[in-house]
Amino acid sequence: METIASFGEFALIARLAQGITASAQRTDIAVGIGDDCAVLDLGSELLLLATTDSQVEGVHFTLSTATTEQIGRKALAVNLSDIAAMGGTPRYALVSLILPASTSLATLDGVYAGLRQEAECYATALVGGNIASAGTQLVIDITLLGAIERGHVLTRSGARPGDILCVTGTLGASAGGLQTLLQPDLPYAAQALEYVRMCHCTPQPRVQEGRVLSWFGPTVVTALLDISDGLSGDLAHLCESSNVGVRLESATIPLSPELCSIAKCIAHDPLDWALHGGEDYELLFSVAPDYVSSVIDAVQAATGTPVTQIGTICAAHDGLMLFGLDGGVAPLRVKSWDHLR
Amino acid sequence: METIASFGEFALIARLAQGITASAQRTDIAVGIGDDCAVLDLGSELLLLATTDSQVEGVHFTLSTATTEQIGRKALAVNLSDIAAMGGTPRYALVSLILPASTSLATLDGVYAGLRQEAECYATALVGGNIASAGTQLVIDITLLGAIERGHVLTRSGARPGDILCVTGTLGASAGGLQTLLQPDLPYAAQALEYVRMCHCTPQPRVQEGRVLSWFGPTVVTALLDISDGLSGDLAHLCESSNVGVRLESATIPLSPELCSIAKCIAHDPLDWALHGGEDYELLFSVAPDYVSSVIDAVQAATGTPVTQIGTICAAHDGLMLFGLDGGVAPLRVKSWDHLR
Repeated sequence: METIASFGEFALIARLAQGITASAQRTDIAVGIGDDCAVLDLGSELLLLATTDSQVEGVHFTLSTATTEQIGRKALAVNLSDIAAMGGTPRYALVSLILPASTSLATLDGVYAGLRQEAECYATALVGGNIASAGTQLVIDITLLGAIERGHVLTRSGARPGDILCVTGTLGASAGGLQTLLQPDLPYAAQALEYVRMCHCTPQPRVQEGRVLSWFGPTVVTALLDISDGLSGDLAHLCESSNVGVRLESATIPLSPELCSIAKCIAHDPLDWALHGGEDYELLFSVAPDYVSSVIDAVQAATGTPVTQIGTICAAHDGLMLFGLDGGVAPLRVKSWDHLR
Repeated sequence: METIASFGEFALIARLAQGITASAQRTDIAVGIGDDCAVLDLGSELLLLATTDSQVEGVHFTLSTATTEQIGRKALAVNLSDIAAMGGTPRYALVSLILPASTSLATLDGVYAGLRQEAECYATALVGGNIASAGTQLVIDITLLGAIERGHVLTRSGARPGDILCVTGTLGASAGGLQTLLQPDLPYAAQALEYVRMCHCTPQPRVQEGRVLSWFGPTVVTALLDISDGLSGDLAHLCESSNVGVRLESATIPLSPELCSIAKCIAHDPLDWALHGGEDYELLFSVAPDYVSSVIDAVQAATGTPVTQIGTICAAHDGLMLFGLDGGVAPLRVKSWDHLR
């Protein structure tokens, strides 16, 4: 009997989407399955963004390595990041909880306190939900709705050869933080440890940064997505959706000093975490070359978040290439987080 | 340590909603937590409806008593019923799956075939989703978005003393069907057995009926909800939301002959299933007395679905009263399905 474990997550999504795309010839669906959010047209100047993501106990979190507030915050943050990845404004959240009957009220109150804090930071209202008691694992499944101005939707599919590839913030810290939870007894520098664990446990969705990018519209910022599965995997999504290739420059990939300190302590290459680690929730985007400085300046001025150029979009037949620190070039190894593997 | 099992589902929802209502002073939220759907205003003539509900293996279904297609259909149907319960049109669904790694591709394909069939019946597009592998139970969590014309939203809270209480279809068959699955070896009449199992495994959401009710607007059809937890429990929700009481007439509660046949075979009172059984997904609504015939005729003419008057709304201080078959009156016992008990 063939099981889902023999498929990858993305092959499975493609399989499930197959029967659907054919029937989705509807003018009220601007973007359907396959991007960070669906984009829906109810007839107003604002288009509706919709995305869903779940956090499962034992898979995405454990009650022993994160506080309940952190778990609640992150459950909403990963969805906020999907709204950011379309350039949108988050508006409304629906929270579906699957609870073991043994869940303590303190746990539930903590998760909800985290949800409310995160929601308030991003002017998001909790407008609905559902509770089911299930008996085994705690699951927090959130659907987030947002809005985006007509004509300003940024998808994964508009990158063109010659565009410059950029990323917000730094990469790899979440994976580094996870690794310190798995190897807790090494002599980490206290400040670096605190930083990478914060990056892992309470990622900051780049909502404001996404809004600035949306001002430029899809002819200037040509493709946008968030890095949830890891740079290599999400870059592969961008390239596939846009039908382009990429030259990625290792030397330019932004790494925080804290991550480098942790990596040294574990004797791991920090670039590996940055390329394949996942859960950074930074924004990855391509920009028409003439506008790179304007876009970077605008994001940095409005948000204080650094933006780094990390490569150039090229033709699809050139493939995905990684230029190494030694000047050599090799095909980019795509090795990101896959929930089914 | 106090656990959620010591709370009821509705007490828990009230607890979680507490911190939220205070902060939800937003004009773009017409209806927040507490009704069948949230009602959201993005500025178009159509308001947005949003609801979420999950089906959990071992709680809401088992793979041994339902086909995978039925499980998929029902997972969407219970959400479609929430849209029907606001008078709305379903539009878009997001499907979040939590899968054990051992899930067979055949199971997943079956669930998705059911989802697609149900979606097509109600012109609903599957526009997004998420897959997580979790290791224990199969969970299908769906968020459904719909639309309702401004000024036509029907909530639970508008019932007034003197209004007539009505219900679509017949009640109790889903609970009867469940009972035949638990006691499979009794000498049921074949046709009755097929009927009650169909009612349990593939409930028909009353979307078209809800649309007809919405035409009359909230001054004629004053309150509307669907019966998911059982007539007694959902009627209690209606009365609490509307701050009214009710006189419910046992003799008028519609029971199908198939249910009566099954009940006789199990030696159970069918009225007990109709009052407290749950999962019927019929619509329960109150109507201004002068318009009862017009509303009933309109629903029946447009949909063929029978509508029955089962009681009268009265003042809150009169409470919830059940007039028995013997002419006696007693407080209505509220004993519905509670996921946490």
